[in-house]
Amino acid sequence: MHHFDSDYMEGAHPAILERMAAENFAKHDGYGCDPICDSARRRIREACGAPDAEIHLLTGGTQTNATMIKALLRPYEGVVAADTGHINVHEAGAVEATGHKVLALPHTDGRLAADTVARCVDAFLADGNRDHMVWPGMVYISQPTEYGTLYSLAELEALSRVCRDRAIPLYMDGARLAYALAAPACDMTLHDAARLCDAFYIGGTKCGALLGEAVVIPRAVMIPHLFTTVKQQGALLAKGWVLGLQFDTLFTDGLYLKIARQGIDTARRLAEGLAAAGYGTPFKPETNQIFLRLPPERLQELSAHATFSPWETLDDGSSIVRLATSWATDMKEIEAFLDELGHP
Amino acid sequence: MHHFDSDYMEGAHPAILERMAAENFAKHDGYGCDPICDSARRRIREACGAPDAEIHLLTGGTQTNATMIKALLRPYEGVVAADTGHINVHEAGAVEATGHKVLALPHTDGRLAADTVARCVDAFLADGNRDHMVWPGMVYISQPTEYGTLYSLAELEALSRVCRDRAIPLYMDGARLAYALAAPACDMTLHDAARLCDAFYIGGTKCGALLGEAVVIPRAVMIPHLFTTVKQQGALLAKGWVLGLQFDTLFTDGLYLKIARQGIDTARRLAEGLAAAGYGTPFKPETNQIFLRLPPERLQELSAHATFSPWETLDDGSSIVRLATSWATDMKEIEAFLDELGHP
Amino acid sequence: MHHFDSDYMEGAHPAILERMAAENFAKHDGYGCDPICDSARRRIREACGAPDAEIHLLTGGTQTNATMIKALLRPYEGVVAADTGHINVHEAGAVEATGHKVLALPHTDGRLAADTVARCVDAFLADGNRDHMVWPGMVYISQPTEYGTLYSLAELEALSRVCRDRAIPLYMDGARLAYALAAPACDMTLHDAARLCDAFYIGGTKCGALLGEAVVIPRAVMIPHLFTTVKQQGALLAKGWVLGLQFDTLFTDGLYLKIARQGIDTARRLAEGLAAAGYGTPFKPETNQIFLRLPPERLQELSAHATFSPWETLDDGSSIVRLATSWATDMKEIEAFLDELGHP
Amino acid sequence: MHHFDSDYMEGAHPAILERMAAENFAKHDGYGCDPICDSARRRIREACGAPDAEIHLLTGGTQTNATMIKALLRPYEGVVAADTGHINVHEAGAVEATGHKVLALPHTDGRLAADTVARCVDAFLADGNRDHMVWPGMVYISQPTEYGTLYSLAELEALSRVCRDRAIPLYMDGARLAYALAAPACDMTLHDAARLCDAFYIGGTKCGALLGEAVVIPRAVMIPHLFTTVKQQGALLAKGWVLGLQFDTLFTDGLYLKIARQGIDTARRLAEGLAAAGYGTPFKPETNQIFLRLPPERLQELSAHATFSPWETLDDGSSIVRLATSWATDMKEIEAFLDELGHP
Repeated sequence: MHHFDSDYMEGAHPAILERMAAENFAKHDGYGCDPICDSARRRIREACGAPDAEIHLLTGGTQTNATMIKALLRPYEGVVAADTGHINVHEAGAVEATGHKVLALPHTDGRLAADTVARCVDAFLADGNRDHMVWPGMVYISQPTEYGTLYSLAELEALSRVCRDRAIPLYMDGARLAYALAAPACDMTLHDAARLCDAFYIGGTKCGALLGEAVVIPRAVMIPHLFTTVKQQGALLAKGWVLGLQFDTLFTDGLYLKIARQGIDTARRLAEGLAAAGYGTPFKPETNQIFLRLPPERLQELSAHATFSPWETLDDGSSIVRLATSWATDMKEIEAFLDELGHP
Repeated sequence: MHHFDSDYMEGAHPAILERMAAENFAKHDGYGCDPICDSARRRIREACGAPDAEIHLLTGGTQTNATMIKALLRPYEGVVAADTGHINVHEAGAVEATGHKVLALPHTDGRLAADTVARCVDAFLADGNRDHMVWPGMVYISQPTEYGTLYSLAELEALSRVCRDRAIPLYMDGARLAYALAAPACDMTLHDAARLCDAFYIGGTKCGALLGEAVVIPRAVMIPHLFTTVKQQGALLAKGWVLGLQFDTLFTDGLYLKIARQGIDTARRLAEGLAAAGYGTPFKPETNQIFLRLPPERLQELSAHATFSPWETLDDGSSIVRLATSWATDMKEIEAFLDELGHP
Repeated sequence: MHHFDSDYMEGAHPAILERMAAENFAKHDGYGCDPICDSARRRIREACGAPDAEIHLLTGGTQTNATMIKALLRPYEGVVAADTGHINVHEAGAVEATGHKVLALPHTDGRLAADTVARCVDAFLADGNRDHMVWPGMVYISQPTEYGTLYSLAELEALSRVCRDRAIPLYMDGARLAYALAAPACDMTLHDAARLCDAFYIGGTKCGALLGEAVVIPRAVMIPHLFTTVKQQGALLAKGWVLGLQFDTLFTDGLYLKIARQGIDTARRLAEGLAAAGYGTPFKPETNQIFLRLPPERLQELSAHATFSPWETLDDGSSIVRLATSWATDMKEIEAFLDELGHP
Repeated sequence: MHHFDSDYMEGAHPAILERMAAENFAKHDGYGCDPICDSARRRIREACGAPDAEIHLLTGGTQTNATMIKALLRPYEGVVAADTGHINVHEAGAVEATGHKVLALPHTDGRLAADTVARCVDAFLADGNRDHMVWPGMVYISQPTEYGTLYSLAELEALSRVCRDRAIPLYMDGARLAYALAAPACDMTLHDAARLCDAFYIGGTKCGALLGEAVVIPRAVMIPHLFTTVKQQGALLAKGWVLGLQFDTLFTDGLYLKIARQGIDTARRLAEGLAAAGYGTPFKPETNQIFLRLPPERLQELSAHATFSPWETLDDGSSIVRLATSWATDMKEIEAFLDELGHP
């Protein structure tokens, strides 16, 4: 049986484990106020071409999204997102628990179009009843999206322009950002992210770390006392150096991108093999997540060889499922799985 | 110029004003703990055929909805509603401000179908990721709906059954309940509401009172210490007897329904006249709200004679607008307006 | 039996009732967007000497406090208050329900001293752990205090200076502000309130209105989109003109202060009579509330003649209780009560 | 320079690091649904003598407290705690951010007495205004306390009795529970914790783990759908096995208690040495935290040799500071430090 359930099944890159062993008995100041975290923040700033950026290291994605959305919004505001957005579906109401509405808009293959946002915000501002409604206070996107698809640089630039024209911050969930940046089809960089977003996070948990997400705020003065809000949200790790060490390692010598390529290469081979075996996909696989649309008999067939994540059951009885690879996936396992599938 | 903007433009029924003058200098205990409120609660229990019901008198609809939804839900739960539901659109995020998500479902002419709810809840319970998602913890409906349409008794019974089979409370927003109960097409009664809902409110503000909404909880033990939650939500009026007096008056000799008929009769005449004049309606007008779909030239024409509420601008440039009558609308004003419109 | 339980037992000043009857059948725009509210706002601005002030009319005190505190604070901030402050004791956690901590400080006869605030804020700023603690984000005071005592103008000026030096807004709860302004010992005016506070409210419910509190924000640009936050908190009355009419009346020809004097005069006579009868008071009565400290036998004696509010039971078995008069209290009732007490 | 700032300066026990390396490339299911977590939960249940207990593994203390308090309380309730409680002082308002008030009571050397709780709850229930106030909905204690002192078994039993007699859950913050259990003066066990508390957590971060706290709910049915609330609070770690592995290791062969003894032994020697050197302590040191009360000159003196945590500045200019040891503190370092202090 082969396991493609998710990209967080394995632990950390070996370089991280080694360094953790080396640092384990040294004494470190708590809460991210230590030299290792300082170094990690320096490297991330450099990688983003954002020398003044404010960086915070948190532990998980839902936590990071809720904390940042709470910190960016005022009470009368909500967050605009694709209706497929992680914050709208799979975060158990974490955003609403901070008192804010998710203003869900239609998506295209998981992407939120700049036009859709512009129309929504402009219609809101023109609405005679707007003062009785939730103000669109920020825009949330995921790169890559929840369907593993990519925003192009042009699309990001359009979103950023729409947001800045309307003085609304653009926030990017980068839980799997490494797999976007390493994808052949991707024409954006971390510099672009820092230039176009008002805040975003660089995912560690799914991209080589044991745990950890690095929030980047390119203009450091934007959110006052974020440290305290992070603490209040239960998102401040006592042994912050454990997070710092991981990002410091991942951002040394471009390790973050290097290892992500393994996830991309194995996903690409897996996608080709599945297509050759007649498995249909509703979205072109662009990163490390492959979505399949399976009639019941093919679902059963595939389940005999692999585990993966259910996504949705359609009215015609077929299922959408997801297979994911990661930086730790072995190409030999892909080949073995495809062999087992027994298709040419 | 004739004003059909809303059904809360005038004040209170004259019987209320008279009694208020009579009671104004007597001394009343605060916070609804006085004999007038006791009498109002008794009369409402009787009108609902619910002798054990718990009754709370609050001041406005948004406040009542947020308070009751907060009181009925646990942290991991959200409220299921039609995407056109007042709580989802026009309450400025009041529900989310209490920490809960509105789980919006598609509607039919403003109505939420029992089947839609059943499918949503059952799909949730069958979803392998359900523990990462907001639990459907209650169902919110409005009778009449935000489009002035009605649930039939059979539809309410189906909704109630779907909810009880799944142990999910059914809550009914009755901001305009009088206009439902007084409508010729309506086949439900207050007894049905008390039998089929786990909580609902009887609207006063739009139905003869200056302000006030009466929450009815047929099984009194259901929500512990609701009084304190009402206070916490800023929904407890110091001079509670002002609310009690109004409901006590409205529920004496059937006044609540009697006066609503005037709203229904004038709306019916207005709807007929507008139809005869060639104004098209997207929903069959069943209560005191009439929705029109107007191309720009007809919008301009109508605006010359009356004020009304904008609702939505459609992609083809036409507009949805709403005209409302009330218990205080004079039939002569309807006739005068239709005359002015200059159509036969 | 004489009733001194509270100052909200009676209804509205007769001038308000008369005008309500006169306006009852006219059509008014909703939500405070009508000429009567405009006039009320104009009169309040004038009375405060604050021509640019933003004014909002809400329905009750707890609601007003929670709304304003939520609107003034950022997530990492709390509100500094005397530990006897209404928001800290008798509002059922309404402030915490908006996500903010009440930072309670010691009081002197219900007053919060400027020095106490300065020391608290300065100690916070100097604390090495401050980033793990709630930031003092605003100061809440009540004038008169919960014990019926008064801030002098000098005390208010000192508080205002402490706050402005530290860029922290000063907010004043004026639920009984009329009784402060009308008190002989009071040397502050509404002009001073507008000059020294960043926001405050002028209480209607306890000072001549049926219901209603008028929020004054002297610098109008301070809180963006407060209307929407008011709506979200369930504090926006559909028939806003009902509130506007009351404040418009109370602020015509100085009615607000004129009628408050009756509350002061009757309280003074009552206090003198009680003192003559040997009832001890823990605080010098300065406004319309009189607190007594009663051993059990005197509590019983007093209870035979009047109703009043229990406040606290002390360790020695004696009780603190409160008697309140109001603008509607008849001097004859005071005399009758004192006669009944049977003391010279 | 010697560092006694806190007990979370070093990493994990070496047995944990070794096992992490061994498991790093195996594939594990996410979110704590894996065999290692199952094993950890089994071992914790056994250590607690609570075969039916529900166990959740979270990442940090503030997060755990906020999640559990939110899950245990209803909207109208608050949490009773010593005014020195971590939740009341150093968690940046995390409890209030979930909408609940901390009801702070006086402490004795950091302990909350059963009598104090009983008097508070009983006075609340007897208060005529109780429905306008926050209901005491649970009791929070820390073992050891924030001052490093201990509850005796008799004190815990009294607290538990007071809570159960009033149907209020007792929750224990065990961030440093290992140092309580390993202290010579401690007469309680994990079995007692499970018998007397309704929920508590076993601290990992400060007691041998890199990160992680294990929540124990002895009666598993008590809190419905806690998994979802944990997710909503951002407290669900994707790679849950990283937490499971740590607790599984710490609860194998009594490692948790064994290693805590090192923290106790080094603290005891440190306390003796400091006392011999004339440093006064405001509380008898019972666990791994030593509090000193230092006049300015002694503060300066001590600062030349060691780093530690500031706690409070007293009015007489002296300071309260804290020194902490941990499972990883080397006795040689204590001796070296005491030698340096240059006192006999």
